[in-house]
Amino acid sequence: MNIPRTSYPRIVIIGGGFAGIALARKLSKQEVQVVLLDRNNYHNFQPLLYQVSTGGLEPDSIAYPIRKILKNFPNFYFRLADVEFVDTENNELKTNIGTLSFDYLVVASGSETNYFGNSEIEKHSMAMKSIPQSLDLRSLILENFEDALLTSDLNERNALMNFVIVGGGPTGVELAGALAEIKKGILPKDYPDLDTRMAQINLVQSSDCLLKGMSAEASEKAEEFLEKLGVNVWKNVRVKSYDGTTATTNGDLTFKTETLVWAAGVQGAIIKGLDGEAFVTRGNRILVNAYNQINGFENIFAIGDIACLVSEEFPVGFPMMAQPAIQQGQQLGDNMLRLLEEKPMKPFKYKDKGSMATIGRNKAVVDMKNFKFQGVFAWYVWMFVHLFFLIGFRNRMVVFVNWVYNYIRFDREARLIIRPYKKKLKDTK
Amino acid sequence: MNIPRTSYPRIVIIGGGFAGIALARKLSKQEVQVVLLDRNNYHNFQPLLYQVSTGGLEPDSIAYPIRKILKNFPNFYFRLADVEFVDTENNELKTNIGTLSFDYLVVASGSETNYFGNSEIEKHSMAMKSIPQSLDLRSLILENFEDALLTSDLNERNALMNFVIVGGGPTGVELAGALAEIKKGILPKDYPDLDTRMAQINLVQSSDCLLKGMSAEASEKAEEFLEKLGVNVWKNVRVKSYDGTTATTNGDLTFKTETLVWAAGVQGAIIKGLDGEAFVTRGNRILVNAYNQINGFENIFAIGDIACLVSEEFPVGFPMMAQPAIQQGQQLGDNMLRLLEEKPMKPFKYKDKGSMATIGRNKAVVDMKNFKFQGVFAWYVWMFVHLFFLIGFRNRMVVFVNWVYNYIRFDREARLIIRPYKKKLKDTK
Repeated sequence: MNIPRTSYPRIVIIGGGFAGIALARKLSKQEVQVVLLDRNNYHNFQPLLYQVSTGGLEPDSIAYPIRKILKNFPNFYFRLADVEFVDTENNELKTNIGTLSFDYLVVASGSETNYFGNSEIEKHSMAMKSIPQSLDLRSLILENFEDALLTSDLNERNALMNFVIVGGGPTGVELAGALAEIKKGILPKDYPDLDTRMAQINLVQSSDCLLKGMSAEASEKAEEFLEKLGVNVWKNVRVKSYDGTTATTNGDLTFKTETLVWAAGVQGAIIKGLDGEAFVTRGNRILVNAYNQINGFENIFAIGDIACLVSEEFPVGFPMMAQPAIQQGQQLGDNMLRLLEEKPMKPFKYKDKGSMATIGRNKAVVDMKNFKFQGVFAWYVWMFVHLFFLIGFRNRMVVFVNWVYNYIRFDREARLIIRPYKKKLKDTK
Repeated sequence: MNIPRTSYPRIVIIGGGFAGIALARKLSKQEVQVVLLDRNNYHNFQPLLYQVSTGGLEPDSIAYPIRKILKNFPNFYFRLADVEFVDTENNELKTNIGTLSFDYLVVASGSETNYFGNSEIEKHSMAMKSIPQSLDLRSLILENFEDALLTSDLNERNALMNFVIVGGGPTGVELAGALAEIKKGILPKDYPDLDTRMAQINLVQSSDCLLKGMSAEASEKAEEFLEKLGVNVWKNVRVKSYDGTTATTNGDLTFKTETLVWAAGVQGAIIKGLDGEAFVTRGNRILVNAYNQINGFENIFAIGDIACLVSEEFPVGFPMMAQPAIQQGQQLGDNMLRLLEEKPMKPFKYKDKGSMATIGRNKAVVDMKNFKFQGVFAWYVWMFVHLFFLIGFRNRMVVFVNWVYNYIRFDREARLIIRPYKKKLKDTK
C-alpha cells in the first residue's frame, strides 16, 4: 500500500464503526499519521438499520462517507481494504490490497452475526448487520407480499406473510414493532386484494424477558407495546433449526415461514493473527486490559464490540453497543497521545448514558441512571438522541423530513425493491 | 394470475413509467378494471438518474412505489411481472407469473439502451437507464478513485480517472457536468493524496452539436458551460469499440479508460408477439396510429417511448422523452373512456412544453416555444420543474433538502459504495 512514511508515528485503525471513527477524530490534527482501513467507504449508523429494512429511511441517510468525516485532517489516510492477517511479530498487516506496517495498531473490527455454529440457520435466515443486508431484507419482505398475491395455496400464502424474528434485544424489538406498524398502516392500502390481517409477526426470545440489558420496567413495557401492536411475543423459546420454510424450536412450537430474521446474537469479528487462545475470549472477543491493550502488546489495542474489557460492573465485558465503543475510541485517543508524550495512560472509565429502544409510533422505553420512563415522551427522546448522534447535517435533515412525513402520513415510502433478493443466492455480507 | 374478472372491461397496462402511470391515473375511479404490470415495484423518475450516479441524490428519492400512486383506486391491480409474450390472437399475455387475459392492452414498456449491435460495447460499458444501473455506475466511479490510490503505474491511474461518456444528449451532458463538479469540488478534499487534476471527463458526440433536439443557442451554451467546467467535448467522433480498457473511435483518437458510459442511443423495449415486421419500425418502436392503436388492432395500443406515432412535425415519431409519454398516457386515457362509451376517439395532439437540460451549478439551458434562455435563471427553472414533476411530497422534500444542501456546501454526500460493482460480472438490468 503506497502510503508514505513520515516522521510521525503511524497508527493503523481497522474499522470505521463507532469506535474507529471516535478514535480517528480524537487523533485528527495531532502529530500522528492515521491510516483507517474499512471494507466499506462509509460509516453506518447501525441503530437505524431496521428502518432501512422497513422502508422508513433510505440507506444513504444513515451512512456517511468516511473520507468526508476526516477530510480536514492532513495526516489521515483511508483505504478500502479487507484485513486478512495481523502479523504481530513484524508489526505488519496483510490486506487484500497489500501489506502495511504500523507503529500502533487499533483493532476496531466490530461484530458479526453469531449463529452459534448452526450453519443451516446461517444459510437460510436473514441478518441485519449491514446496509446491503438491510436492503436485502427490505426486498424480501416486499417480494413476499407480491408472491403472496400469486398463490392460491393458503399455507404458502401464510408462510409468505409470516415473519419470525429471533432475538428480543433492541434489534429484534425495533424490527418487530416496525413490521407491525407496516402491517397495520401500509399493507391494507397496498394490497387491497390480500387479506393482510393474516400477516403474523413473531418475536422469539430465548430468555424470559425482552431487552435483557435494560430495566424490568422497560422490558415489561416493551412487551406490552408490542402486544398492543399485534406482535406475538414468544418467551423462553429457542429456535433450533430453519430450513428456509420451517423453523423448529426447543418445544412443540414450529413456524411455517419464508422469512426468519436472526437477531439472536453477535460475536466479535476476529481477524487472523489475533485468533489464538491467548487473545480470544467469550463471545469471540479479544481480551484487553483497562487501557484497551491486547494481551502481551504495548502497541496493539482493541476497542468497541471486538474488545472484551472486563470490569467489576461488567465481568464479561461491556455490552456490544454504540456507547462503550464511542467512549473507548475517545479515551484511547487521549491515551495514545499520552503514550506518545511518555505520560502514563489512564484506565478506561465507562460513563453509562443510559439505553433506549423504540417500539413504534409514540412508543419507546428509556433507561437513564436515575430516571426510567416509557411512552410518548420516551419516543421523542429516542428520536432526538438518534438525530443528534447521526453524523452530518444533511443526514439529520433528511432523516428528520422522513420521520415527520412518516409520522404525519402513517407511511413509509422508501419501500422499493431496488435489487430483488434471491433467497437462495446470498451474495452480500 | 389470480385476478378476478368483474363486469368491468379489463385494461392491462405493461409498464409503470411516465406513460403507463399517466394512463392509469386517468382511468382511476372509472368503470374499468386496470391491471398494471411492471418488473419493478416502483416508478422511477429517469431524468434524475444521473444524480443518483453522481452521489447527489439517494435512489428512493427519485422513485415511488407504484402501489402507492394508485392506492385509492378500487379496481386497480398491480403485479410484479415480466411480460414474455403478447398473444394478440387470443387477447392474452404470457408472463413469468402466469397468463393474463385482457380486453384492452396498452404497451408502455418504454425503451432500453441501444448499442447498435455492438456486443463488445454492451458488455464493457455502463448504462444509466435504471436505478440499479445508476447505483452500479456510482459504485464504479468511487471504486476507481479508491483503486487509483493503490497503483503506482501512472497509465493505470490515469485510465481509472478517465471517464468517457458517449452521447451528447441530455443524459450525457448532465452526467458530464455533474462529474466535472465532483472533480472540482469533492475529489481534492476526499483524495488529498491523489492528483485529482489528472481526472478527465470526456463527452463524445457523433454529430456536430450537443443536445440535438434543442435550439442552436441551447446547444452552444451547453458546450460553453461544459468547457468552462473542464469537460473535453469531442464532436463528430464515433466510438467504435471498447474492450474494457481502450475505446477506439472513427478517427485516430483513442481513450484509455476504465469507465465508458454509453448514453448514445435508446430503442424501444419490444415484447415478443409484437416483434413482427407488421409492427416494428425505426428505432425498434411499434408503429401506432393517431389514436395510439397498433396496426391491425382495435383494442391494442402503445404509448410512450415504445410507440412510434408519426406526425407532420415528427416524421419519425416523437422524441423518447417524458413529455410525449405523459401526454400520450393522458390522452389515451380520455380516448379509452370515449371508446367504452362508444364515442369517437380524438387523434393525439402534442403540446410542446419545451425542453431543458442542466449542466451544473447555476448552469442550465431552457427552450420554450417562444422563449429560450440559459444560465442561472434557467437553472432555477430546471430545478423547479423537476421538483414539480417528481411524484410525492416526501420525495420533493427530500430532493429539495439535498439540493439546497449540495448547493450551499458544494457537496454531494450520497457517495457510498453500497454494493461494490464487479466490472466483469454485470448482474443488473
